[in-house]
Parts: sequence; C-alpha cells; structure tokens
Amino acid sequence: MEKGSLLYEGKAKRIYATDQEDVVLISYKDSATAFNGEKKAELAGKGRLNNEISSRIFLKLKEHNIPSHFIEQLSEHEQLVKHVTIIPLEVVTRNVAAGSLAKRLGLEEGQVFDQPIVEFYFKDDQLGDPLLTEDHIQLLNIASKEEVAEIKKQALAINEALRSLFAEMEIDLIDFKVEFGKDKKGIILLADEISPDTCRLWEKNTNRKLDKDVFRRDLGNLVEAYEEVFNRLGGKQHV
Amino acid sequence: MEKGSLLYEGKAKRIYATDQEDVVLISYKDSATAFNGEKKAELAGKGRLNNEISSRIFLKLKEHNIPSHFIEQLSEHEQLVKHVTIIPLEVVTRNVAAGSLAKRLGLEEGQVFDQPIVEFYFKDDQLGDPLLTEDHIQLLNIASKEEVAEIKKQALAINEALRSLFAEMEIDLIDFKVEFGKDKKGIILLADEISPDTCRLWEKNTNRKLDKDVFRRDLGNLVEAYEEVFNRLGGKQHV
Ligand SMILES: Nc1ncnc2c1ncn2[C@@H]1O[C@H](COP(=O)(O)OP(=O)(O)OP(=O)(O)O)[C@@H](O)[C@H]1O
Ligand SMILES: Nc1ncnc2c1ncn2[C@@H]1O[C@H](COP(=O)(O)OP(=O)(O)OP(=O)(O)O)[C@@H](O)[C@H]1O
Ligand SMILES: [Mg+2]
Ligand SMILES: [Mg+2]
Repeated sequence: MEKGSLLYEGKAKRIYATDQEDVVLISYKDSATAFNGEKKAELAGKGRLNNEISSRIFLKLKEHNIPSHFIEQLSEHEQLVKHVTIIPLEVVTRNVAAGSLAKRLGLEEGQVFDQPIVEFYFKDDQLGDPLLTEDHIQLLNIASKEEVAEIKKQALAINEALRSLFAEMEIDLIDFKVEFGKDKKGIILLADEISPDTCRLWEKNTNRKLDKDVFRRDLGNLVEAYEEVFNRLGGKQHV
Repeated sequence: MEKGSLLYEGKAKRIYATDQEDVVLISYKDSATAFNGEKKAELAGKGRLNNEISSRIFLKLKEHNIPSHFIEQLSEHEQLVKHVTIIPLEVVTRNVAAGSLAKRLGLEEGQVFDQPIVEFYFKDDQLGDPLLTEDHIQLLNIASKEEVAEIKKQALAINEALRSLFAEMEIDLIDFKVEFGKDKKGIILLADEISPDTCRLWEKNTNRKLDKDVFRRDLGNLVEAYEEVFNRLGGKQHV
C-alpha cells in the first residue's frame, strides 16, 4: 500500500490517498483543539494514542457485528480505512447529561437518562455546527428520512456495544460523537474516529474524566488520561 | 361574566380569572418586546389591534374546522378563552426561510421550502427558548410521542388554513409561532394568540413586512402595519 497525496488536513487528522481508489490512509496528529478551534495545543503522544485507541475500538465493534470504515492499523500514527463520502452530520448519542446539552436544557451534569438520545448537528464549522431537527435535515437535503432512521439505529447499536466495552474497563460512557459516510454502493458506514477526543468517558465511582474535557476544562494531563484508556483497552500487549 | 383576579402578567398580555373555573379573560397590552425582552416599547393601539386580529383569526380557523381556546371577543382589548394548561413548547411552522433559522442554517432569507417544517422550542425564558428535538421533548417529559405527533399535525393544518386566509389578503405567511394547551379532558387545543406579533407576514410582490419585524428591525411604524393587516381582515365593519 503506497501513501499518496494529502487529500485533506483537518484539526486532528490528515487524510492521504493510497494506490487503491477506495482506500485512504488516516494519520493522527498530536494537535488538541476545542470550542470550534478557539483553544489549541500540541500534545506529544496524543496522535499515537488516538490512533491506537480508535483502531482497537473499531476492531472490538466488528466483534459486536458493527461494521465500519476501518481496515487495519498501519503504524503508531496511521490506519487504513475505506474511502467514503462523509454525510455532513455530527451524530451525538447521550446516556447522561453533560456539556452543552446540560447547559442548553438546564439539566444537572450527571443526570442519567432513562433512554439514550441521539442528536444531529450540521457539520459546518462556519455555522458553528448547529443542532438540527429531522425536518432541517430534509430541508438541507443532507439525508433522506430512511437514511436518518438507519443512522439513528446504527448510533444506538454502537452505543450499546461501546457501553459494554467501556463497562468492562470500569468506565461510564456518558456521550459520544460519530460520523457516517456512504461507500460507492450507497451503504452507510461508521467512519472517522472513536477516541477520547470524541467520547465523554468518566471513571466509574470516582467520575474522573478520561476524555477531551481534561483539555477543554484544564482538569490535568490529557495524555496521561488517554494513556489510561489505552491501558484499560489492553495497551501494547494486544497489538 | 365577571373579571376576577389577575392570574398572570406576561410581556404582551394579562390573564384574569372569571366566575367560571374553566374560562379565563385575556387582556392585550400595548407593550412590544423582542429579543427575549431586551428591546421594549409601549405602542398605543397595538394591544387593541392584536386582540381584534387574534379574535378574527380564531373565528376564521373555526370555519376551517380548527378548534381553539377562543370563546368570544369581549371588548377592544379583551377576549374570553377556555382555561388550559399550556404545554411549554413554542411551535414554529415555516414556509419560507427567515429570521433565526436562515441565520442558523446559512439559508437565504426568502428561500421557499418545498414542504413546511415544524420546529419546537422550549418555552423557558431563562434558557432563552432553546430549539428541541423530539428526543429532548421526551427527555424533558414535556409531551409524549403521540402528543408531539398530534401537535405537529395540528400545526400543519393551522398553516394550511392561515396560508389561504392570508393569501386572500395578498399576504404571504412566511412562518408563525403557536402554543397549545390541554383542557381538563386532556384534549390538546390551540391557545395563546395568532397575530402579527407571532407571524411573519410579507405583502405579496412588494415583500413589505406587516409583522413584528417592523419593530425588531426598525422598519417603520408597527401600529400602521398591524392596522393594515386588520383592515385586510375586514376591519371594523365585520365586528
Ligand atoms: N473513511 C473516510 N473517508 C473520507 N473522509 C473521512 C473518512 N473518515 C473520516 N473522514 C473525514 O476526514 C476528516 C478528518 O479530519 P479531522 O477529524 O482532523 O477534521 P476536523 O478538523 O474534525 O474537521 P472536520 O471534521 O470539520 O472536517 C474529517 O473531515 C472526516 O469527516
Ligand atoms: N387559554 C389559556 N389558558 C391559560 N394560559 C394561557 C392561555 N392562552 C395563553 N396562555 C398563557 O398566557 C400567557 C400570555 O402572556 P404573554 O403572551 O404576555 O406571555 P409572554 O410574555 O409571552 O411570556 P410567556 O409566554 O413566556 O409566559 C402565556 O404564558 C401563555 O402561554
Ligand atoms: Mg474531526
Ligand atoms: Mg407570549
């Protein structure tokens, strides 16, 4: 597999072409950003940890019969994935009130929901990723009703799988963001990453934060927190 | 019918008890407010016009088989309505992009939608009336799924009736906000008001604004614009 030209550079990753048209290479950067890019830092080790964690999680999801774009981990910072056309939605699933939702709806952080909820945000940095209703999604021609139902179903299945995975690691999955893409056949596939950058992870009992909130809210050493998640996932010995 | 004690004073109306337990009296004030109360003015004539217009519209909706809380107009500023328990949702139906939606989603003001859309905002001034998804409505225990479906159905029926009513008046109905309440039997009933305070009304062809945007955006004389709407609805001669 040849690493080709840089197709896209985002805040957290670079996407490269490969010698296969339907395969791209994702390289994880050491950059940490929050609040739509307003807060920034370079944190040595973060890129490697997110690549390791994300690769491990996609493999575990496969064991739970949840397909994704993930093909294989190539190196400390790199993984190969199927090239998809990203659907411009940030799909957020929540089990517990936290962050922006708690603030917007006047809920107490930590309130456990009877049912997980799924939210859609318009992936548009210029507009500040606004919350969308299903009517807005049709209006903007982002996805059909059937596709939205399919995405919601997949998000809830991913949530169940991740919750049990993290429960074994003595971690509560509070909420997480995923992106979906369409492959050439139009099949909707889990894409992008699943890592402490895109999940809220609270250590059971202590509620110690093991996710990007460490950076957002200056709660301590982010790389140490991510290392902790990596170790609980099996760490080096499983590679 | 005896006018009893003041039950509630809002920004635009006062609600009084009557000698019948399930009937309240609404008295329309001359206050204009916008941006969640940040911009304010007293405008002589506004209260009378909104009462006249709202009464007239509720009567016309009844002819279209759309029930509401409206019983009868009592005086220039007052109307009698059925007492309901307000469901804390601002239900917004939109035919054309305008205002906050156009801004949030990056749409051009005036873009006509293929289908009307219905949005729900949490009626909570302290939280700034945040947009809600249907999952949020369940989470906050505001209404059941069946009730939300019923409200949406009613909102779309009201939209059709209002559109044809305003079309006869050479006015385009861009969007509007309604509130619903439950009567003692749990029946969901259109409540509050329908007036140029709660609708966006653009004169056909000229797009002259005949609604509260005249006040929000300092576009001219609000009372003159409301008087124009009242006259097109039949004005004094029909009372
Ligand atoms: N399998 C895939 N095929 C094509 N693009 C992908 C795939 N998986 C993820 N992407 C996209 O690659 C980019 C990853 O870069 P990164 O996460 O750093 O972007 P970002 O800074 O979050 O910005 P944004 O996500 O808003 O573009 C994202 O745009 C993501 O949607
Ligand atoms: N039939 C009804 N029975 C009981 N309450 C009603 C009825 N119709 C409307 N209301 C309520 O009466 C109040 C009308 O006052 P007004 O519209 O001035 O309030 P407001 O300033 O808009 O504040 P808010 O609507 O946020 O309470 C609203 O709270 C409205 O929900
Ligand atoms: Mg990203
Ligand atoms: Mg009101």
